[in-house]
Amino acid sequence: MNKRKIINDPVYGFINIPTELIFELISHPYFQRLRRIRQLGLAEFVYTGATHTRFQHALGAMYLMGQAMDVLRSKGIEISDSEKESAQIAILLHDLGHGPFSHVLEHSILPNVAHEEISLILMNRLNVTFDNKLLTAIEMFKGTYYRPFFNQLISSQLDIDRLDYLHRDSFFTGVVEGTIGVERIIKMMCVVDNQLAIEDKGILSIDNFLNARRIMYWQVYLHKTSIAAEVMLKGMIRLVRTELTDTSSNGCTNTLNELLNLNWTEHTIDSDKFIELFTDLDDVDLWASIKNWQNSGNATLKFLASSFLNRNLFKIKFYPNQIDLENEKLSRIQDLKNAGISHNPDYLVQSGKISNKAYIAGNSTIKIAMKNGEIKDIMNASDLPTIKALSNIVKKSYLSWVNPLYLR
Amino acid sequence: MNKRKIINDPVYGFINIPTELIFELISHPYFQRLRRIRQLGLAEFVYTGATHTRFQHALGAMYLMGQAMDVLRSKGIEISDSEKESAQIAILLHDLGHGPFSHVLEHSILPNVAHEEISLILMNRLNVTFDNKLLTAIEMFKGTYYRPFFNQLISSQLDIDRLDYLHRDSFFTGVVEGTIGVERIIKMMCVVDNQLAIEDKGILSIDNFLNARRIMYWQVYLHKTSIAAEVMLKGMIRLVRTELTDTSSNGCTNTLNELLNLNWTEHTIDSDKFIELFTDLDDVDLWASIKNWQNSGNATLKFLASSFLNRNLFKIKFYPNQIDLENEKLSRIQDLKNAGISHNPDYLVQSGKISNKAYIAGNSTIKIAMKNGEIKDIMNASDLPTIKALSNIVKKSYLSWVNPLYLR
Amino acid sequence: MNKRKIINDPVYGFINIPTELIFELISHPYFQRLRRIRQLGLAEFVYTGATHTRFQHALGAMYLMGQAMDVLRSKGIEISDSEKESAQIAILLHDLGHGPFSHVLEHSILPNVAHEEISLILMNRLNVTFDNKLLTAIEMFKGTYYRPFFNQLISSQLDIDRLDYLHRDSFFTGVVEGTIGVERIIKMMCVVDNQLAIEDKGILSIDNFLNARRIMYWQVYLHKTSIAAEVMLKGMIRLVRTELTDTSSNGCTNTLNELLNLNWTEHTIDSDKFIELFTDLDDVDLWASIKNWQNSGNATLKFLASSFLNRNLFKIKFYPNQIDLENEKLSRIQDLKNAGISHNPDYLVQSGKISNKAYIAGNSTIKIAMKNGEIKDIMNASDLPTIKALSNIVKKSYLSWVNPLYLR
Amino acid sequence: MNKRKIINDPVYGFINIPTELIFELISHPYFQRLRRIRQLGLAEFVYTGATHTRFQHALGAMYLMGQAMDVLRSKGIEISDSEKESAQIAILLHDLGHGPFSHVLEHSILPNVAHEEISLILMNRLNVTFDNKLLTAIEMFKGTYYRPFFNQLISSQLDIDRLDYLHRDSFFTGVVEGTIGVERIIKMMCVVDNQLAIEDKGILSIDNFLNARRIMYWQVYLHKTSIAAEVMLKGMIRLVRTELTDTSSNGCTNTLNELLNLNWTEHTIDSDKFIELFTDLDDVDLWASIKNWQNSGNATLKFLASSFLNRNLFKIKFYPNQIDLENEKLSRIQDLKNAGISHNPDYLVQSGKISNKAYIAGNSTIKIAMKNGEIKDIMNASDLPTIKALSNIVKKSYLSWVNPLYLR
Repeated sequence: MNKRKIINDPVYGFINIPTELIFELISHPYFQRLRRIRQLGLAEFVYTGATHTRFQHALGAMYLMGQAMDVLRSKGIEISDSEKESAQIAILLHDLGHGPFSHVLEHSILPNVAHEEISLILMNRLNVTFDNKLLTAIEMFKGTYYRPFFNQLISSQLDIDRLDYLHRDSFFTGVVEGTIGVERIIKMMCVVDNQLAIEDKGILSIDNFLNARRIMYWQVYLHKTSIAAEVMLKGMIRLVRTELTDTSSNGCTNTLNELLNLNWTEHTIDSDKFIELFTDLDDVDLWASIKNWQNSGNATLKFLASSFLNRNLFKIKFYPNQIDLENEKLSRIQDLKNAGISHNPDYLVQSGKISNKAYIAGNSTIKIAMKNGEIKDIMNASDLPTIKALSNIVKKSYLSWVNPLYLR
Repeated sequence: MNKRKIINDPVYGFINIPTELIFELISHPYFQRLRRIRQLGLAEFVYTGATHTRFQHALGAMYLMGQAMDVLRSKGIEISDSEKESAQIAILLHDLGHGPFSHVLEHSILPNVAHEEISLILMNRLNVTFDNKLLTAIEMFKGTYYRPFFNQLISSQLDIDRLDYLHRDSFFTGVVEGTIGVERIIKMMCVVDNQLAIEDKGILSIDNFLNARRIMYWQVYLHKTSIAAEVMLKGMIRLVRTELTDTSSNGCTNTLNELLNLNWTEHTIDSDKFIELFTDLDDVDLWASIKNWQNSGNATLKFLASSFLNRNLFKIKFYPNQIDLENEKLSRIQDLKNAGISHNPDYLVQSGKISNKAYIAGNSTIKIAMKNGEIKDIMNASDLPTIKALSNIVKKSYLSWVNPLYLR
Repeated sequence: MNKRKIINDPVYGFINIPTELIFELISHPYFQRLRRIRQLGLAEFVYTGATHTRFQHALGAMYLMGQAMDVLRSKGIEISDSEKESAQIAILLHDLGHGPFSHVLEHSILPNVAHEEISLILMNRLNVTFDNKLLTAIEMFKGTYYRPFFNQLISSQLDIDRLDYLHRDSFFTGVVEGTIGVERIIKMMCVVDNQLAIEDKGILSIDNFLNARRIMYWQVYLHKTSIAAEVMLKGMIRLVRTELTDTSSNGCTNTLNELLNLNWTEHTIDSDKFIELFTDLDDVDLWASIKNWQNSGNATLKFLASSFLNRNLFKIKFYPNQIDLENEKLSRIQDLKNAGISHNPDYLVQSGKISNKAYIAGNSTIKIAMKNGEIKDIMNASDLPTIKALSNIVKKSYLSWVNPLYLR
Repeated sequence: MNKRKIINDPVYGFINIPTELIFELISHPYFQRLRRIRQLGLAEFVYTGATHTRFQHALGAMYLMGQAMDVLRSKGIEISDSEKESAQIAILLHDLGHGPFSHVLEHSILPNVAHEEISLILMNRLNVTFDNKLLTAIEMFKGTYYRPFFNQLISSQLDIDRLDYLHRDSFFTGVVEGTIGVERIIKMMCVVDNQLAIEDKGILSIDNFLNARRIMYWQVYLHKTSIAAEVMLKGMIRLVRTELTDTSSNGCTNTLNELLNLNWTEHTIDSDKFIELFTDLDDVDLWASIKNWQNSGNATLKFLASSFLNRNLFKIKFYPNQIDLENEKLSRIQDLKNAGISHNPDYLVQSGKISNKAYIAGNSTIKIAMKNGEIKDIMNASDLPTIKALSNIVKKSYLSWVNPLYLR
């Protein structure tokens, strides 16, 4: 039985599913669930085309990993077929632990758990199902495999994950300023002393990649409108958790309800119950709950849900990071009181912080392979003033609040 | 207050919202709901990029209508600003009446109502809300406006609707064979005696458009896998309606439940109750219900729902149209019985018909404006043998059935 | 010494030069000359972007041949590294015999010689230079290699040559109607009994390819303006040959002059002299000569050359194939006389014929591999009415004449 | 007579020729000559797709100017139809003064004249031909028109010229890292106090534009291989001028010869003779001369010409700007002598300098229109550290020399 299939992808054209094991993994319910989780959460409120899913991203990253393996082999790096498959599996499954709306709800529904931990638990469970065939992939993912460049391809400041998502998100949002030279960067990859590096003639493409990443952060991932929507959504979750004591009628779908009603920690997430619930949870649960909340008996929840659905979003303003927003916040709350609005202001006025780190100088930096064989940190390899500039982390504070008009 | 906004669209780059009225209409909950209805329903099971929504399509069509208006004006056709706005509104709102999964469920949830009728009712309600400002748009939509070319731009065999959806669906599926020359076709549009026509030097672009449409039908809209998924989904709806008599625990979302439990006809759909339910119904209701059905007490529904979610889809085979599939069907049913499967075979084996009409010769044909001023039906204007070939309607029958392996 | 290089190509992104031998061939003056021969000759008078060269096309075709080899290997066809290299060399060099303006002047400068014959002679000479390493490539090119599918990939109705040029010409002209699914067609290629075939699920892509080819013929290759320019150019060559008896001052570049002054036949072209002249002849010779002709003592040549350079092109009209244009022609000549114009009308009024064969039914047809293992001619494999329609050859006559205004 | 035409452009799709006057200007021999001048000179030796011409660039810039006019009008800036046409004419004709290979030969053939001066003279002559209809366009071009923003759109650090050429050069070279958001930048343009500015929400697009420009400089405009080819070409011109005293047999085309044999200055270029020669000179003259030089009696010229044609280019190395290359140069010359090579080393070893200025802080800076109405220099408007970094001018020295192998 031929399980080699070809998948149409608007970004790369065609993606081959390279092996039967990978075909089986893609067919597994854990992976199929990613069809129901959007890559960019709420960005679709701004970029109407950005409805693409984690499913596509994971396939795209697997495809690029295959390209990277072929490039490295062509440069004399020995990579066995089994290592290639493991690297492709590791990147394919690296996002299994994402919950609904991707990053948006990570800290809201499961405040004490990182999505990478859940990815790892799910990979371990798949490893049992598939007779230990994922052992190497898991080592690569965790960074314990004896050739570190595989882990660097999966998770570093210039990994296959970022290459696919920047390229893909730029494509679906239509933000052409985020265009990067994926193919060229991969062709410039090399391995020196088992470490991933970039040939020095590829340095401008890396500069462009870091710039594009910074632009995508400001223009898309940290777009004001997305953040305002996120504030509303997190507010609703918090309200349901805090104020709706009768969990039998809080409007949540069953799965969301059960997940919200326990305080999951890294000690309890490797239980069958958690896995059952988590692998059933996806964007649908959130949207279905929000639709139910439109008819909630709690007036604030009802207001937030229907505003959210009809895209009547909060206002939002960015401030320099160090500024104290407490007075600003109180003044917005006073405005609401003056307008005679009796809702709990905790859910209607919210402050927070964002940060944009295009490149973090320090430990796991991007390495450049110079023509003379030397390996340099990109900060030292380049006389480009921009790379240094890109390593500045930019932080901002924000205040987001309801437009009182909508509360009339 | 400036309500002129620009929307990023990955297909056209940027879309201007041209007037305040159009801005208000886009902001209305009836229109925002289209964010939650995928353009291609189940095609995402095959084309992973095809997650785009009716919302984008409607905006894209509005944009193209603006282009068409400008082209016609540049050729000396007088079109007032108000007519231009009305034409853009009519195409913007033409799909308001679509339900979840677009065409998939039209005949399943509301078997006696066409989506165009619902669109019209919703436009009429918006017209009341917006102080009769939609009167001309509605006339254009209905075809009662005194200049028929406006209606032909909204709904004919070469309308703006088709131009946008073919282009957009080709973009998001990655099926490059569906590429059409949208810009060129619009530049070739002209109006003769108030009828829409195409300048004769654009005839090859029309030929290409009809070919692309035919290809998109086979490759995407009528793709076997989509149809198999559709068969399963319709089966679930039918099962819920027919067999689950206790509507309080059938797993449907409230809105879906209420809609399913009444037999809506063209006489009852213009009621406040219907409108309230319909404008709350979207893809989320279906997905949430299917997720609930995974835990249904009805074994067949439980099986269908979890198969559907995990993409374990029915098998399907196409046959020549005239062939009688009754024996084939009985033999599939017998296979199930032999395998000891006790489910009701009505939901596990299903036959049906599809048809692909690239171009329908007859009444509302595509008109070509010859250089000598004459207007000809495209079938007579062209010596291209392919156009005649494209007017053949191709019909096929299909049989779709469960893979018995999945029922072990 | 590492001779593996990467070439940027706007169409495919990056093209690897796969072997040292191929690198040497690309570096050879015979191949570098293709940089100075435009792919589409005079089409640039209409499609301003179409300035691409045979050099790019040859590299692109070599790249696609590499893709095809990999696809066939992945389907179990054994292809040795040496066969792969030979197939890539054969397609790389297949156009070496093209003269200036590609097809335009084939029958004008060298009326008795086909460009394929010259390609073969040049390949044979390269074979001597490169120690017989091109023997297999030459067999593949001639069709004498024992596995015919290699020749079919190089030269048939669905060869790699056409795939690259259609795709590339569509890209550079901006005629999106000519878009084809190159990648998909190659993925659908297979080999049965040593014959090239297409898997039956690729049949729509072939249909689209044939359609696109037909459209590119009408829209680009046989565009009226290109043909009018071609008529002028051929007229100038004929005039120089016929009327300018003093070859020392006819304005031709040396190389063009020497080539024009002998009547080369298939018997004399394999001489060192011919090869020396031919491999020095390129677009530059023609343009330089035309620029000289602007100052010719022959008034007609002077007029034609300066009209051509300033794009004051002849008028042209297409007629049904069977129509006799003699009277029409005489009447145009009479017009010139009436206007008091004394130029020889032979160079100012010209008739001719064109034909567009999207697909030729008959001998070397496109083969489809059916699921049951059978091989069918595409005309029988498909129930698509369009494929039959595409096999109609469309012929037209044309009359092209000077705009008398330009002769004032 | 309808002179409104549509031109296919692979970059923008379709370009309308907006007025009859513009149609006539495009048809004029001065403008048609741009078809024979490549935009990127010798870059085609590296980027095989970069065969596009000044003709396309000028049309593209005219198109973008039209877009800019429409955007500014939509923001309430009054621009008359005649001003719009003049702005489009000014940008259309701004490059008329370019000679063969664009910038490459500016300082070699006409060392004392800037191309902008010649553009102006040609515009003035066209103004006479076209009954003073170009007066305003010329004022805009010169910067004497009373509304400075028109001149800023034609020639400043963020002008329409740069927007088109960056976008177009990135497209044809395939260097995706040079992608810029042309459409978005134009939509962000505004006019404050008759000065061109960018709305502050467009600041990231400007940052991206400056980055892309810097990358295109390193990757394309200052690519080592192009510079090596340029060194060879300039060497040939210098050699012909200096050493070949018998101008009747120096192998130059007539036009090139006449131009080289006089020392044109700004005082003599506005003569009929110069204009006649200059407007006849294009890439063809250079290529035809180089082809003749292959057979020159001067051995060095013969060697350089045939090396150039067959792409056997000089070696080249970049050095920090301040380094003295004299010793390095002498050592290369000694190598040649040691190898027994008797050619004049002046033409075989050459040093020079390049510089890359993405953005020049100072006088005519890019202005940002802040939300509060204030206008700021982009350096102060942005807290982006990269913009400051981009204003560093990077200078390098190079040494380029013949590969002795080629001289055996």
